[in-house]
Amino acid sequence: MKATVTQLTNDLIASYARYGGINHLDGKNLPSKRTISLITVDLLRLLFPGFFDEKLIHSSELKAETAVLLDSVLGALEDEIRKSLEYNPPADLAKKDITTAAHTITREFLNRLPQVREILQTDVEAAYAGDPAALSKEEVIVAYPFIETIAVQRLAHELYQKHIPLIPRIMTEWAHARTGMDLHPGAKIGTHFFVDHCTGTVVGETATIGNHVKMYHGVTLGAKSTSHVEQLRGKKRHPTIEDHVTIYPGATILGGDTVIGAGTTIGGNVFIMDSVAPNSLVIYDGLDMRVLNKADKDKPAPGVRI
Amino acid sequence: MKATVTQLTNDLIASYARYGGINHLDGKNLPSKRTISLITVDLLRLLFPGFFDEKLIHSSELKAETAVLLDSVLGALEDEIRKSLEYNPPADLAKKDITTAAHTITREFLNRLPQVREILQTDVEAAYAGDPAALSKEEVIVAYPFIETIAVQRLAHELYQKHIPLIPRIMTEWAHARTGMDLHPGAKIGTHFFVDHCTGTVVGETATIGNHVKMYHGVTLGAKSTSHVEQLRGKKRHPTIEDHVTIYPGATILGGDTVIGAGTTIGGNVFIMDSVAPNSLVIYDGLDMRVLNKADKDKPAPGVRI
Amino acid sequence: MKATVTQLTNDLIASYARYGGINHLDGKNLPSKRTISLITVDLLRLLFPGFFDEKLIHSSELKAETAVLLDSVLGALEDEIRKSLEYNPPADLAKKDITTAAHTITREFLNRLPQVREILQTDVEAAYAGDPAALSKEEVIVAYPFIETIAVQRLAHELYQKHIPLIPRIMTEWAHARTGMDLHPGAKIGTHFFVDHCTGTVVGETATIGNHVKMYHGVTLGAKSTSHVEQLRGKKRHPTIEDHVTIYPGATILGGDTVIGAGTTIGGNVFIMDSVAPNSLVIYDGLDMRVLNKADKDKPAPGVRI
Repeated sequence: MKATVTQLTNDLIASYARYGGINHLDGKNLPSKRTISLITVDLLRLLFPGFFDEKLIHSSELKAETAVLLDSVLGALEDEIRKSLEYNPPADLAKKDITTAAHTITREFLNRLPQVREILQTDVEAAYAGDPAALSKEEVIVAYPFIETIAVQRLAHELYQKHIPLIPRIMTEWAHARTGMDLHPGAKIGTHFFVDHCTGTVVGETATIGNHVKMYHGVTLGAKSTSHVEQLRGKKRHPTIEDHVTIYPGATILGGDTVIGAGTTIGGNVFIMDSVAPNSLVIYDGLDMRVLNKADKDKPAPGVRI
Repeated sequence: MKATVTQLTNDLIASYARYGGINHLDGKNLPSKRTISLITVDLLRLLFPGFFDEKLIHSSELKAETAVLLDSVLGALEDEIRKSLEYNPPADLAKKDITTAAHTITREFLNRLPQVREILQTDVEAAYAGDPAALSKEEVIVAYPFIETIAVQRLAHELYQKHIPLIPRIMTEWAHARTGMDLHPGAKIGTHFFVDHCTGTVVGETATIGNHVKMYHGVTLGAKSTSHVEQLRGKKRHPTIEDHVTIYPGATILGGDTVIGAGTTIGGNVFIMDSVAPNSLVIYDGLDMRVLNKADKDKPAPGVRI
Repeated sequence: MKATVTQLTNDLIASYARYGGINHLDGKNLPSKRTISLITVDLLRLLFPGFFDEKLIHSSELKAETAVLLDSVLGALEDEIRKSLEYNPPADLAKKDITTAAHTITREFLNRLPQVREILQTDVEAAYAGDPAALSKEEVIVAYPFIETIAVQRLAHELYQKHIPLIPRIMTEWAHARTGMDLHPGAKIGTHFFVDHCTGTVVGETATIGNHVKMYHGVTLGAKSTSHVEQLRGKKRHPTIEDHVTIYPGATILGGDTVIGAGTTIGGNVFIMDSVAPNSLVIYDGLDMRVLNKADKDKPAPGVRI
């Protein structure tokens, strides 16, 4: 047994040396995925007091509990932001200034929480107004995966705008793993946003979404694939969705120049790579489907392939 | 540091007061998401003894262990049902009768477990019969996300029928987060149901599904979106799927009047808002696709858009 | 209370006896889902040292920590493999040889870790090269759900090839639950594979994927459904994807005879059950969609159904 372990260990250690690039040892200290998950949960507790906590918070304790939680988040987040900046410092940040920058950015970020709550309230309203199955706004917050996902994206977007590496993406991937919806931290999302069911919906880094947009699960706001990846980093590659647009399940909309005009409805399973004028209906029309009686299945029929 | 925390706290507390409706303090006590998750796991252990437990249960201990588990679930679930009824009491339930009602409903619910097991056995059979990759019924229970999801929906449906607020939805969202399949507690689902792979499949509140229905991942049985949400709460908004229907991945079927007739097969990625006669094949036909040689890509060709 | 619990227990125990086949007691000891999850996480730590650990590993401790971890995995995995072989022994394995077989297979499997790392490095390269949003290979490993899912599939595939029952599927379902991507352990997947976003992508047991294949979320490489399930167990039922193919979100490709030729691009939401020649573009063409002005909505128009 002992000899086996020694040999397996030696082979694996040799592999670590041979195939560089997939392990990270010594040197720069990556932010911790687990710590960022815990911070994300604490931020949700600060945004929706009483909803993500185990015990009910009473008004009399609210201020004291909020202060304790904020103090804890402040310290933990500052550490992770410092590690993230050390790992990949912005061009204009000197090494000696990183600690101070982490300190300042963390405070600025936490200062934004009231504004984040303000916009999240419009999302809660949109979810309640948009789903006949919702019985109350409390049900929306406690049981809809959407609220958790959009809250995390709006928080991550604040850090993304401050050019913090890694952390914003780790935050949105935490939500992605829980709800199946992948909203990139870079996406600019307006007020009164609602995505019902969430699973499989993907919104890319440079997508822009207006106000009062309603989407369903399985919707992609994506980029056209290309072999010229390096030229595209940082460029606008994902669609623009204007105000009051509704997008049904399974629709795929691609391209940085694609603009879906205000007031438009995009039907289910539609595939779009061109812009659409305001107030349009874009539908996958039943005329393109074949509806056949199974009794006729064995007769040769053009296009029947099942 | 202390001053910063105090200021951040004050701003956030002010925000709690300003944007009401997204936090819940004092007053009515919402059921606990975490407790309901634990109860759900215990219910799965009661439904499939030996599968969701860490240690193997021997026949000699089965009765004693079942009694202990039932006793624990009984107390915990009664508490949550009482909180749920206090939060949003049905019109015909007086405040003083809530504790008694919670007591009665919990017992009635647990009494239904043998019937729930009976119908779940038909689902296990359908999964094993429907997937050539399944090697045994044990593999289906231990490794297929479907069984967990349908078991939770059938449990939640029992509570939904008793008009318990919030808890049924929290239960199905627990399963949705784990498996990516969102089966609303309100959906009426027949025997021998099977959904392979599960991710992204959504079945709405008022959907009706017959016996021997087989579906795949990414299938939506949804509602047409509307601006008249308030008028629709409680109305039939989702499709009816009759017996022996098969629905391939990515199909989207919308509307409360839409009936998919018995014995029908719905092809992959199809979008449907109309009823379909029994024994039909509905397919997205290859004739509507363009297949082009990439060498011809630069020649002008009508409809080529990639 | 006591009487209620006794009655509920008796009814449930009677149900366990009545509906056999959905519980597992005594007799053969199924492998433990929870233990296999823990082993899977430890295997990821061995493949990507420093990424899935809480604390940073320094070079000086790497060898000692690797040996400890390998030793622990060796024992735990051998136990689970033995239980799995006892549960469903291959035809050519005598009962008395199971313990020795479990011992040998576990060592052979762990011996393959360096080779698994070698091919995973090509996946990391493909992910970094294929996504303009990726800023570094470290970001790919720490934040992309794809790397975790493909690593688990490549590990499970090694055990699948050795005809170990249950464990490979439990491993890939662990990853499926976390990332929404269901890669069957049986699928043969070439080098430089990348799936962006992952959610809802399904690759079936007998699928074959070449080198340098790029896919997106919501892609299905599936089987045609059939009522002759028993005849199909073990047969080739899922498509073959040749080298350098790109498949956009939501495409569904079905059938064991379906071959997607090298260099082909499959557009979003396309449904395919036939082979496609090399270097093709297969697109869902905009000509089949209706784009209408909402002002014209009330005029009768053929095919308008929204």
